[in-house]
Amino acid sequence: MHNDTIVALATPSGSGAIAVIRLSGNEAITIASTCFKSVSNKNLLKQKTHTIHLGHIVENERTIDEVLVSIFKDPNSYTGENVVEISCHGSSYIQQEIIQLFLRQGCRMATAGEFTLRAFLNGKLDLSQAEAVADLISSDNEASHQIAMQQMRGGFSSEIAKLREELLNFASLIELELDFAEEDVEFADRTQFKQLIERITFVLKRLIDSFSVGNVIKNGIPVAIVGEPNVGKSTLLNALLNEDRAIVSEIAGTTRDTIEDEISIGGIGFRFIDTAGIRDTKDVVESIGIKKTFEKIEQAQVVMYISPLTPKGGIAEETIIEIEKIKNKFPQKQLLVILNKIDQITATELADLITNLKPHVPNLIPISAKTGFGVEALTNKLLDLINTGALRNNETIVTNSRHYDALLKAFEEIQKVQFGLETGLSGDLLAIDIRQALYHFGEITGEITNDDLLGNIFANFCIGK
Amino acid sequence: MHNDTIVALATPSGSGAIAVIRLSGNEAITIASTCFKSVSNKNLLKQKTHTIHLGHIVENERTIDEVLVSIFKDPNSYTGENVVEISCHGSSYIQQEIIQLFLRQGCRMATAGEFTLRAFLNGKLDLSQAEAVADLISSDNEASHQIAMQQMRGGFSSEIAKLREELLNFASLIELELDFAEEDVEFADRTQFKQLIERITFVLKRLIDSFSVGNVIKNGIPVAIVGEPNVGKSTLLNALLNEDRAIVSEIAGTTRDTIEDEISIGGIGFRFIDTAGIRDTKDVVESIGIKKTFEKIEQAQVVMYISPLTPKGGIAEETIIEIEKIKNKFPQKQLLVILNKIDQITATELADLITNLKPHVPNLIPISAKTGFGVEALTNKLLDLINTGALRNNETIVTNSRHYDALLKAFEEIQKVQFGLETGLSGDLLAIDIRQALYHFGEITGEITNDDLLGNIFANFCIGK
Repeated sequence: MHNDTIVALATPSGSGAIAVIRLSGNEAITIASTCFKSVSNKNLLKQKTHTIHLGHIVENERTIDEVLVSIFKDPNSYTGENVVEISCHGSSYIQQEIIQLFLRQGCRMATAGEFTLRAFLNGKLDLSQAEAVADLISSDNEASHQIAMQQMRGGFSSEIAKLREELLNFASLIELELDFAEEDVEFADRTQFKQLIERITFVLKRLIDSFSVGNVIKNGIPVAIVGEPNVGKSTLLNALLNEDRAIVSEIAGTTRDTIEDEISIGGIGFRFIDTAGIRDTKDVVESIGIKKTFEKIEQAQVVMYISPLTPKGGIAEETIIEIEKIKNKFPQKQLLVILNKIDQITATELADLITNLKPHVPNLIPISAKTGFGVEALTNKLLDLINTGALRNNETIVTNSRHYDALLKAFEEIQKVQFGLETGLSGDLLAIDIRQALYHFGEITGEITNDDLLGNIFANFCIGK
Repeated sequence: MHNDTIVALATPSGSGAIAVIRLSGNEAITIASTCFKSVSNKNLLKQKTHTIHLGHIVENERTIDEVLVSIFKDPNSYTGENVVEISCHGSSYIQQEIIQLFLRQGCRMATAGEFTLRAFLNGKLDLSQAEAVADLISSDNEASHQIAMQQMRGGFSSEIAKLREELLNFASLIELELDFAEEDVEFADRTQFKQLIERITFVLKRLIDSFSVGNVIKNGIPVAIVGEPNVGKSTLLNALLNEDRAIVSEIAGTTRDTIEDEISIGGIGFRFIDTAGIRDTKDVVESIGIKKTFEKIEQAQVVMYISPLTPKGGIAEETIIEIEKIKNKFPQKQLLVILNKIDQITATELADLITNLKPHVPNLIPISAKTGFGVEALTNKLLDLINTGALRNNETIVTNSRHYDALLKAFEEIQKVQFGLETGLSGDLLAIDIRQALYHFGEITGEITNDDLLGNIFANFCIGK
């Protein structure tokens, strides 16, 4: 079924010093050996696994490149099959020539994620570990990297697998009772079983709860910045950036009127979404702007309102009205009010401002992006808004919505089992609910799967992985 | 001097399935071993050269990634030093974390081309081979790839080295004569020496001549396309492209009003430079356009004039005037006149057109980019314009202007030697000219070098090579 040999570029496309082309399949080493001329006349087929060989990729008399060939033998490879990695010079031309040569020699282009799919099918990884590989590659801050790494190393899988095994054990005992129905025996100790179900309920609840953190960590916490163009939004973003020497990137695909900056603060990614503000106006174009601002606030988890100072260093009446408006319209959103440019006013004026705003504002943070005053308080506040306890305690955090769905379904079934146990439900009906719960556990790690599901999961991988 | 350990990303930046980080230096394996935890508890320091090891990159208790580590031991590596290559997951975050970890462990960021510089300094490559590595990475068609490959494998170096050795031999004999000046002996057979000088002259001439081909092959042959916007320029480029299934790329950095497409035809890169045409006008803006067109033609080696058809399917008088103008202004440039869209006219009309244009046009090529008629004739004509004989015969072709300069200087000195031999110049003066010629040969392969020269050469490399 999966015995053809696949080939793909494993390194990013474009020019670099070197590129790596990867082959996997029964015939990988055989095919590579037909195109490879070792500098010391070695026969690739006779080499040990995990060894590297210098030579040339040749087609007939033509030399395509001087390369290093790495050999990995079934089952000691990423995919569990024979794998060959060719490290060639990093020209796009050479990459294409070598890949096309292997296609002529009987290889097939790998589809997205096919190397990892084979690793899963060959039992090298379970499904949640395979999914973590894609998460790991796309992780761009410490928190998402840490979660993906833990998942890839099997932390999440083993937690699920352990619960599943214990539950399976009880399921077997209860099903065994059914065979002896007439004798009315009880192989499965109901007290122990209730304790197990309680334990499973507790773990499932924790995992399900962790998703609210996991999801934002994986995708970055969306923060809508509400403020007029000249209140110092970009200076503020730069100040946050300098505070942490983090990566700023303009997210591709955003339209010209929505600039999103992703900044890593304390190892967690925050997506800052610039908005046009909500100043009241009769102008039609500006009204559209306000509508858009509200849409963006809707999508955000945190709203950062940047309060402009009047020329005299005070706060305009409209500002307070606007803050009230946001509070009323979005009571669920966490709102931070930033008093920027406080270096322009005196300490007394600042004290007056704070007094003025305090009754209306829950989280008031005076800062000067220019001098750096208050920036640390702001980053601490942002981190406080996120429940990072689980992260700090190295607990398993669910980041994948497929896992989240399966956990919710498993939880539902476990509740049914619990209710059944309490109400003395008959063994055959209990067994059905347990089997359903087991099914949803199995979906996570891939014991239960189907081609559509696998197709969906691996289509999100890059080619060559 | 070069005993510190350098580190750099060797694969293109950006996200891919995997990335490769390279370390080189005495301490490379030691440093890697402090950050690496093998899955089977192997000690990296005790492993054989050219072996691969699975494990984790760790800093204190934190796991950064699961990686494959390849070990190459001095002198059996690219640089001739201890080399470690770390194949990690292809996230930019992970790449940065691993590189920063190695920097903390005492590595230094490699400068551009520093791995190859070390390979040169450690005698793994001579200078012209090292330069070929950069050419190979930037080669994007068969011809430039083939030349770079031959140069990297030492074809050019060995040709130069052979001549240099023979010349050196004679130089020594002549210098020996000087020691016995009073005895008037002749250790160096003047007849044999004359023959050698003739042979060297012949080879140098061929190499110097090859540069005119080599240079255009390396940089792509510039072809200026002269034609109005609606004469079918882009259809024609696409037709040329389909003919050869080649790579089209818009060259970065070109301004919006100059689009350059590089197309590989018959394995040779042609750079098509679109121009605005030269239609006479009183409009100031258009006059600037004409000036620019002339500037581009000046830079091109071939001019492809695309002749528009009148609504009646004929040729306007202005077209003939324009062709004459180009011929007169650029008598040295190779001019091709393309009669495009001939599918729109009858065979009789075509015959009339050809009769009409023939007296004015040296290379007239009727084509239909739409139907494909004549496209093959055009590609053949383009290839004919380039002297590809040397390429076909697998002769050494000089592509590097530094080598070209050194060859010209060596040629000059050899001519002096020849003149000296013919005029019976004294041995001491002859020896000076021979030493000068030897010096210029040595410049090519790197026997003669200095830090400035090396700095210039390797600054053009990418980091990680």
